[in-house]
Amino acid sequence: MLAQHLHVVYDHIEKHDWPSVREAIVNLPEPEIAELLFEIEPAQRMIVFRLLPRELAGEVFAQMEKEQQNELLQELTQEETRRLLEELTPDDRTSLLEELPGQATQRLLNLLSPEDLKQARQLLGYPPESVGRLMTPDYVALRPEWTIQQALDHIRAKGHDSETIDTVYVTDNRWKLLDAISLRRIILADSSKTVADVMDYQYVCLEAHQDREEAVRFMERYDLSSVPIVDRDGILLGIVTFDDVMDVAVEEVTEDFHKAAAVAPLKENYRGASVFSLYRKRIGWLLALVFTNVFSGAAIASFEEIIAANVALVFFLPLLIDSSGNAGSQSATLAVRALATGEIKLSDWLYLVGKEIFTALLLGLTMALAVSLVGLARGGAIIGLIVSLTMICTVMFGSIIGLMLPFLLSRLKFDPATASAPLITTLADISGVLIYFSIATLALGAE
Amino acid sequence: MLAQHLHVVYDHIEKHDWPSVREAIVNLPEPEIAELLFEIEPAQRMIVFRLLPRELAGEVFAQMEKEQQNELLQELTQEETRRLLEELTPDDRTSLLEELPGQATQRLLNLLSPEDLKQARQLLGYPPESVGRLMTPDYVALRPEWTIQQALDHIRAKGHDSETIDTVYVTDNRWKLLDAISLRRIILADSSKTVADVMDYQYVCLEAHQDREEAVRFMERYDLSSVPIVDRDGILLGIVTFDDVMDVAVEEVTEDFHKAAAVAPLKENYRGASVFSLYRKRIGWLLALVFTNVFSGAAIASFEEIIAANVALVFFLPLLIDSSGNAGSQSATLAVRALATGEIKLSDWLYLVGKEIFTALLLGLTMALAVSLVGLARGGAIIGLIVSLTMICTVMFGSIIGLMLPFLLSRLKFDPATASAPLITTLADISGVLIYFSIATLALGAE
Repeated sequence: MLAQHLHVVYDHIEKHDWPSVREAIVNLPEPEIAELLFEIEPAQRMIVFRLLPRELAGEVFAQMEKEQQNELLQELTQEETRRLLEELTPDDRTSLLEELPGQATQRLLNLLSPEDLKQARQLLGYPPESVGRLMTPDYVALRPEWTIQQALDHIRAKGHDSETIDTVYVTDNRWKLLDAISLRRIILADSSKTVADVMDYQYVCLEAHQDREEAVRFMERYDLSSVPIVDRDGILLGIVTFDDVMDVAVEEVTEDFHKAAAVAPLKENYRGASVFSLYRKRIGWLLALVFTNVFSGAAIASFEEIIAANVALVFFLPLLIDSSGNAGSQSATLAVRALATGEIKLSDWLYLVGKEIFTALLLGLTMALAVSLVGLARGGAIIGLIVSLTMICTVMFGSIIGLMLPFLLSRLKFDPATASAPLITTLADISGVLIYFSIATLALGAE
Repeated sequence: MLAQHLHVVYDHIEKHDWPSVREAIVNLPEPEIAELLFEIEPAQRMIVFRLLPRELAGEVFAQMEKEQQNELLQELTQEETRRLLEELTPDDRTSLLEELPGQATQRLLNLLSPEDLKQARQLLGYPPESVGRLMTPDYVALRPEWTIQQALDHIRAKGHDSETIDTVYVTDNRWKLLDAISLRRIILADSSKTVADVMDYQYVCLEAHQDREEAVRFMERYDLSSVPIVDRDGILLGIVTFDDVMDVAVEEVTEDFHKAAAVAPLKENYRGASVFSLYRKRIGWLLALVFTNVFSGAAIASFEEIIAANVALVFFLPLLIDSSGNAGSQSATLAVRALATGEIKLSDWLYLVGKEIFTALLLGLTMALAVSLVGLARGGAIIGLIVSLTMICTVMFGSIIGLMLPFLLSRLKFDPATASAPLITTLADISGVLIYFSIATLALGAE
C-alpha cells in the first residue's frame, strides 16, 4: 500500500503537478516524506518541502539526518526558517542546535521567540549526552487533590501541546514530582474520585545531568514509554520520550560496535564522514597496535637461531597466533556484550574464568587434532607434536586473556568495550610467539 | 529512594517478618522484585514469591530470565502453576512456552483453560522469530460509525484487559483493520463527533509471519509504541507492544556482536550457558579458520628459501599481517553496522570503496612511517624499505577486502555480519604473507 502511495507521488512530481503532489504526500508517514525529499532533484526538493503544511513540515524536518537538515536550512528564507523552528518540538530543536556549527546555531537562536530562546538556552545548558539534552518540557501535570473529571478537563486543555499524554505526572504546587500515572488509569477510573485515589507512588525518574544511556537502561528495564526528569530537589523539569531514547540506543550500540573493532566512536554518519575524519578515528588504535606488535617481533628475534635451523616452523606461525587471537576475540566479545546488557556482573569473573578453562581446553584439543594432521604431513612427528601442543596452550591462553581483559578494564574504570578484537589479536600474538618457540626450543633442543 | 526501599525489604526478610515483607515488597517495581528473589536463599525465595498478590506474581514472573522461570516453576504446585499461567499476558505465555523443553510445555498446556489453550496453540503456530510469536490479542478495537462517547465507553469497558490503550484500532465488522489512532486523539476530540471524524487512515502494520526484526525497524522508523499485526487479508490479529520489541532489539544486537566475533548466535544467557553449548557455538568458525589459515602456511612454504636466507624478515611478519587484519576489521565493522542500521545501502558500495582507497592510503602511509623506523633499526635500509612498502600495500588491501566483503556477502544473500573480525584477519593474513614475501623476493633478489 505504501509502495503504491509512493509511486503516485513520484508520478505527480515528474509531471510537476504540484496540487496533486500536495494532496498525495500529506497521507504519507513522515519518515517516508523525509526520504523522498532527498531522492528527488534539489530544485524539486524545495518546491515539495514548501508544499507541506507547517506542522507536517516540522515533523518531516525532525526525521531528517543532520546533514540533510543543514542542507535544507541553507535554502530556506529567514522567515521560513523562523516558522520551521517554531513548529519543532523543544527536544528536536535542542538536537538541531547542538549539532550545527557555532555560527549557524547563533543565527538560529536569533530567530527564536524570547520564550523559545529561553527554553533552548536552558536545555542546551545541560551537559552533552545527558538526559537533559533529550528532554521536552511539554507534558501534562496534575495535582493530587483534583477530581478525575478535573484531571480529564485539564488533559483535554493541555494535551494538544504535550508530546505525550499516555503518561501524566502528578506534582505538588511547587512542581515536586509525586507520581507518574498512565492515562489509562485516569480513563478507567470513576470520574468522581480524585487523582490521589488512583496514585500508586510507583514511579522511577532520572536527574537531568545523568547520562542518556541511563534513560535507555531505564526504559528497557521498566518497560516505560517516557521517563520524568527531575532536578536534585525532585522538581519536575521535563520528560524524555521513547522515540528519542530509541535513537540514542541505536547510536550507543553503534559506538560499541566501533569500539569492538578498535575504531574511536564516529559521531557522524558513516556515509557522510570525510576521509580525514575516518582516518582520525582509525589511526590511533592502529598505531598503538603497531607498536605493541613490535614485542612479537622482539620475541621472534630472541628465537632467531631455532627459526633459522627449522624454517618449517614459520609455516605454522600465522595459523597458531591467529587461532589464539580468534578464540580470544570470541571470549572477549561474549564478555563485553554480557557486561553491557547487565547479563553478567563484575563479580561473576571467577565463575566465568572457571567455565572458560574447560571450554577453551575442549576448543584447543579439537583444533590441535585438526592441526596435528597438517603438522604431521608437513613437518613430521616432532613438528606435529610441537604444533598441537602449542595450539592447546595458545587457544587456552588467548581465550582466558580475552575473557579477563574486559573485567580488568572495567575494574580499572575503563570501558570494557576497549577489549577489541584487534587488541586481543595483538596480545595473543605476543604470547603465541613466546609459547610456540619455547615449546619448539624444548622439543628440538632435546632431539 | 529505591535503594532504601530495597534495604528495608532485605531487613524484613532477614528477620523472617513476612507480613512486613509483603507490605514493603508490593511497592517495588517488578524488575526489582524479580532480581531480589534470585539474590536470596532458595527456601526464602518461595516464601516471598508466595506472598505476592496474584497479578503482581504474574508480572514479576514475566520479568525473570528463562532459567529462573524454569527453576521457579519446578517449586510450584500444580494449582499454583495454573493460577500463575492465568495471570500471564498471552504474549508472555507464548514466550514462556516456546522456551521450555517439549515435555514441560505439554505439562503447562494441560493446565490452561480451554480458551487460553486455543489462544496459546494459535500463537505458537506462527513461525519462530516471527512477529506472530510476540503478538497479544488483547487490544481495543472501535468501529468508525461509533461516536467518540461510545468509543470512550467501550475503551472504559475493555481497557482493563487490554495490554495498551495508548493506541486503539478501528476495524470494520469483519475485523479488517482500517486505522490505528492514539487514545490522545479520542480524548481530545469533541464527544459528539464520530470515530470516522478523527480517523486519518495513516497507519502502518505488519503481517504475522514477518520477521520480528521488522517490528524493531518499524518502531524505530515510525516512533510507534505498538504495531498492529494482520493476516494476508488485512484482518487484525493482534498487536505487538514496544516492551517486547525492545527485548527483541537487544537480543538481535547481541547476535550481531557474536557474529562479529565469529561466534554462532548463542540463544541462551551467556552466564547460564553450559561449557558444551559454548564449545559448540565457537568451534565451527575456529576450525574453518584453522583450515583457511593453512593457505598462509602454504604461501610461506613457497617462500622458504628467501626466509631461510633472511630470517630477520620473520621479525616483521606478525606486525604486518596483524596491521592488515586490524585495518580490515575496522572497515568491515563500519560497513556491517551501517548496513544494519540502514545508514548505507548496497548501492553505496562503489562510493564507499572510493573513499576507503584514500582513507586506507593515509592509514598505510602513517603506519609505514612508524614501522620504517623499526625496520631501519632492526634490519637496515633495504629491510626498512621492504617493510614500509608492504605495510602500505597490506593495509590498503586489508581495508578494501574488509569493506567489500559485507557487501559481497549481502549480495549473495548471506548475512553481511558474517564478515567477522576473525574472518577478515585470516584473509588479511594470506594476502599479507603473499605481498610481504613477494616484495622481499623482488627487493632482495635484485640486491
